[in-house]
Amino acid sequence: MKKILFSHSLNALLCAVALLLLGAVCATAQPAADPLPAWNDGPAKQAIVAFVAKVTKPGSPDFVPVPERIATFDNDGTLWAEQPMYFQLFYALHRVGVLAPSHPEWKDKEPFASILKGDVKAALAGGEHALGELMLATHTGMTSEEFEASVKDWLATTKHPLTKQPFTAMVYQPMVELLAYLRTNGFKTFIVSGGGIEFMRPWTEKVYGIPPEQVVGSSVKTKFELRAGQPVLVRLPEVNFIDDGAGKPVGINQRIGRRPVMAFGNSDGDLQMLQYTAAGSGPRFCLYVHHTDAVREWAYDRKSAIGQLDKGLDAAAAKGWTVVSMKDDWNKIFAFEK
Amino acid sequence: MKKILFSHSLNALLCAVALLLLGAVCATAQPAADPLPAWNDGPAKQAIVAFVAKVTKPGSPDFVPVPERIATFDNDGTLWAEQPMYFQLFYALHRVGVLAPSHPEWKDKEPFASILKGDVKAALAGGEHALGELMLATHTGMTSEEFEASVKDWLATTKHPLTKQPFTAMVYQPMVELLAYLRTNGFKTFIVSGGGIEFMRPWTEKVYGIPPEQVVGSSVKTKFELRAGQPVLVRLPEVNFIDDGAGKPVGINQRIGRRPVMAFGNSDGDLQMLQYTAAGSGPRFCLYVHHTDAVREWAYDRKSAIGQLDKGLDAAAAKGWTVVSMKDDWNKIFAFEK
Repeated sequence: MKKILFSHSLNALLCAVALLLLGAVCATAQPAADPLPAWNDGPAKQAIVAFVAKVTKPGSPDFVPVPERIATFDNDGTLWAEQPMYFQLFYALHRVGVLAPSHPEWKDKEPFASILKGDVKAALAGGEHALGELMLATHTGMTSEEFEASVKDWLATTKHPLTKQPFTAMVYQPMVELLAYLRTNGFKTFIVSGGGIEFMRPWTEKVYGIPPEQVVGSSVKTKFELRAGQPVLVRLPEVNFIDDGAGKPVGINQRIGRRPVMAFGNSDGDLQMLQYTAAGSGPRFCLYVHHTDAVREWAYDRKSAIGQLDKGLDAAAAKGWTVVSMKDDWNKIFAFEK
Repeated sequence: MKKILFSHSLNALLCAVALLLLGAVCATAQPAADPLPAWNDGPAKQAIVAFVAKVTKPGSPDFVPVPERIATFDNDGTLWAEQPMYFQLFYALHRVGVLAPSHPEWKDKEPFASILKGDVKAALAGGEHALGELMLATHTGMTSEEFEASVKDWLATTKHPLTKQPFTAMVYQPMVELLAYLRTNGFKTFIVSGGGIEFMRPWTEKVYGIPPEQVVGSSVKTKFELRAGQPVLVRLPEVNFIDDGAGKPVGINQRIGRRPVMAFGNSDGDLQMLQYTAAGSGPRFCLYVHHTDAVREWAYDRKSAIGQLDKGLDAAAAKGWTVVSMKDDWNKIFAFEK
């Protein structure tokens, strides 16, 4: 017994020595690669790197413990593109075609009739009411698993009409790098989007490295049922929560329960999330992505119908938040760019 | 430049060698301590350990990748005690006393009048309506931060009336060990409770090691407001979600978005969570805590007013789920036991 104990002590000592050696040797083993190569070396990148350095430096007055390192990201227009309309709307239009054979009444009912005729503009002329009908008709009435399969099917079979790229290829390369960089520095990265939770979850882990439990978004009500003894969750045609504008801090509190240390958005719908983040005690970082590149992406802000950034630009200027100019700060926007 | 490259390569090689040595040496450095010492070596403990071993063994047909290792735990009666009534109700009664000076009308209004006279039984005779009034009056009308402070204040100043222990000392030691054991094995541990999310979050990280973002529970609606320029979330007297019974799979889907691999409950209110878990493809593990120890804790099941376990016991027998007998399977229930 004593021999065993001694042998364990010796091994423990060797183990400690090996750990020390490892620390000394491996720290110099690799030259540090730039973790944000798609970012130009301008003020936005510098602000991000400086902030992360100070909140992760042990002993620094601005040090933030790992469990509190929460970073929240809007999705549409912040992590992936949102023009000429929200991508989730492309899914809805696609689903009208798929579901039409089971809905002969749609031939005479708006907004479906116009969509089936290919006239999206006329379909959406019905405003919020038409949009709501379209979304509920295409997003509910199936189980969560069936819905997930339909999103995956759509992603696998359709392309963006202008770029001809898969929708999931239209994520911003600098933001994908930023997500990974923050995680490397102990941050938990969350999506906080007006888009549907179950619309995003099927692909966020693969595309962004963000797992389903870190996707905050809008949702419909669901109902637990036993179907032939098998438990399923059925998506009901009733809105549960809209995670946009003043809903974003509500969703963050509901789902995360900690105030973000860093928050990233691109529109006035993100303003309250950024305000809520900035109002926390200790160091906080807020950033707006400004769509300034009409050649490689789109250029829009104060008067845009989608992704309007009007109050947000003023707030950023007043509060000293970081504003990324896509044109100037990003040397690559999409990974598929030549 | 070549010299630098060579030096980096050499360091990388040394680093790899050190890593290999470290693995060999440290694997034998410590004799394996029993991670579940408060569990007797009976069928329940054996079932848990065998399940964890098979789902974490690379190459095993039952292997579950780390991101999918989700374990969900009911709280009341599963992680901490729930007798003679849910602890959150003690908080509510306490708050009636704190708030009474600002509510002179409570002197003549039930259930408050009876509570202020110390007659809890009469107060709760009003059934669900009285309970609902009590909960909303004591849990809403303040900001989330004020509510958090009030929960912490209550925990710091009150004791359980029978054990004279702080409420947070009335957590089950074997379950605290189990939570840590699962996390060591790559599981993410979540609470899925009928209790209030914001009632639990102030203490779950310290007591269970479960961070706020992994607490699923019931909630009231909240509203984002700017008060003197400061963003706050105000708790409104309106139920948002009841995370109990058929609500638990709904809450799990909403908040986690993955089906649990392991689920733990103690009452019929957990049945749907266990059914939903068990119905997943691949290996799944369901466990009921059965309150069988009238001496060290409480003994109750099929006819209990709180924590009724009636359908659940039948389901467990029919499905082969693990049932823990607190009396037989746990050599220690509370850490404060002598």
